[in-house]
Amino acid sequence: MPALKPTKHSCEIVYLGVVPDREAALVSDPKVEVFAGFAGIDGECHAGLTRPSCSRVLSQHARGTEIRNARQLSIVSAEELELIAAEIGLDSIDPAWLGASIMVRGSPDFTFIPPSSRLQNEAGTTLVVDMENRPCIFPGKEELEPRYPGKGKMFKTAATDRRGVTAWVEREGPLKVGDRFTLHIPNQRHWSLEA
Amino acid sequence: MPALKPTKHSCEIVYLGVVPDREAALVSDPKVEVFAGFAGIDGECHAGLTRPSCSRVLSQHARGTEIRNARQLSIVSAEELELIAAEIGLDSIDPAWLGASIMVRGSPDFTFIPPSSRLQNEAGTTLVVDMENRPCIFPGKEELEPRYPGKGKMFKTAATDRRGVTAWVEREGPLKVGDRFTLHIPNQRHWSLEA
Repeated sequence: MPALKPTKHSCEIVYLGVVPDREAALVSDPKVEVFAGFAGIDGECHAGLTRPSCSRVLSQHARGTEIRNARQLSIVSAEELELIAAEIGLDSIDPAWLGASIMVRGSPDFTFIPPSSRLQNEAGTTLVVDMENRPCIFPGKEELEPRYPGKGKMFKTAATDRRGVTAWVEREGPLKVGDRFTLHIPNQRHWSLEA
Repeated sequence: MPALKPTKHSCEIVYLGVVPDREAALVSDPKVEVFAGFAGIDGECHAGLTRPSCSRVLSQHARGTEIRNARQLSIVSAEELELIAAEIGLDSIDPAWLGASIMVRGSPDFTFIPPSSRLQNEAGTTLVVDMENRPCIFPGKEELEPRYPGKGKMFKTAATDRRGVTAWVEREGPLKVGDRFTLHIPNQRHWSLEA
């Protein structure tokens, strides 16, 4: 039996977004459909087959080292954003404020789906989950605080364990709002030294 | 804290090999040093930024679909090959017979190191573990059986949970016999639905 196993779990794409220029703004512009190529989403500033390494991987690489880009996409879940909003005391959090590429609905405990899982839509477009994303202060500082003074600094803590995952494109194709992703996971036991 | 965490675990490269042409033979030719580029190891028939999908991912893709190549390298462990050999009743198993790209020594339970783990040597060359590799019948049929008649058919079962992992290159650089890999793992709790 192959190591990569389809599961009964699926989730719906309820938001798609593209960040045209991170330096200009963190937010993503909503889209109804995008094309996911091997380098990521067309027109997205986080696209690229490789990227200069950032502060998140300083334990592995000096800043600016050319590495393969496993952070082409940021995927969040609607249910987890609702939990963040509730904790901060807001009615909702717009996935655009987090610069999200995709928001899904229907996949429980989304941030912790196993590393190397695959998300595949009906067209066959396939994304590989690298691992959990960790929250930073910028959505709070740049997007929440100007809209809701006093709330910005609450974001990072509220988003802990709820910030979704980073991913890259394994099979090219379209992604559309309303598509359903099926979840495929590595069908293997846990490493015995991990705990 | 970043999601990718260095661990205290390390292992030594004790074998490097290149398979020049899988159609001609499964075995890898031993090397003392290779260059790992973004497409994989130079001169290796499994190299490529993409690959046509194979029987292992038929639950995800029609055979021959172009997908990103997460199987550039096959990495096995000396300790696990010793267990396979003992179970079959041989003194040793040559990693070349499995078409291995790399054999390491010193990493316990190697086949089950977490998906999306990184292996990084002193030069900074970094490999990403996709997931467990699953044994097939071919090393037994093509390599063991001609050498040790009657042993070939025992390989697949003996190699279960001991076949190592598949991997791809995240940061380019040299790999040499005698290098030490440090293991970096995704520092995240298990998915609550996985069990």
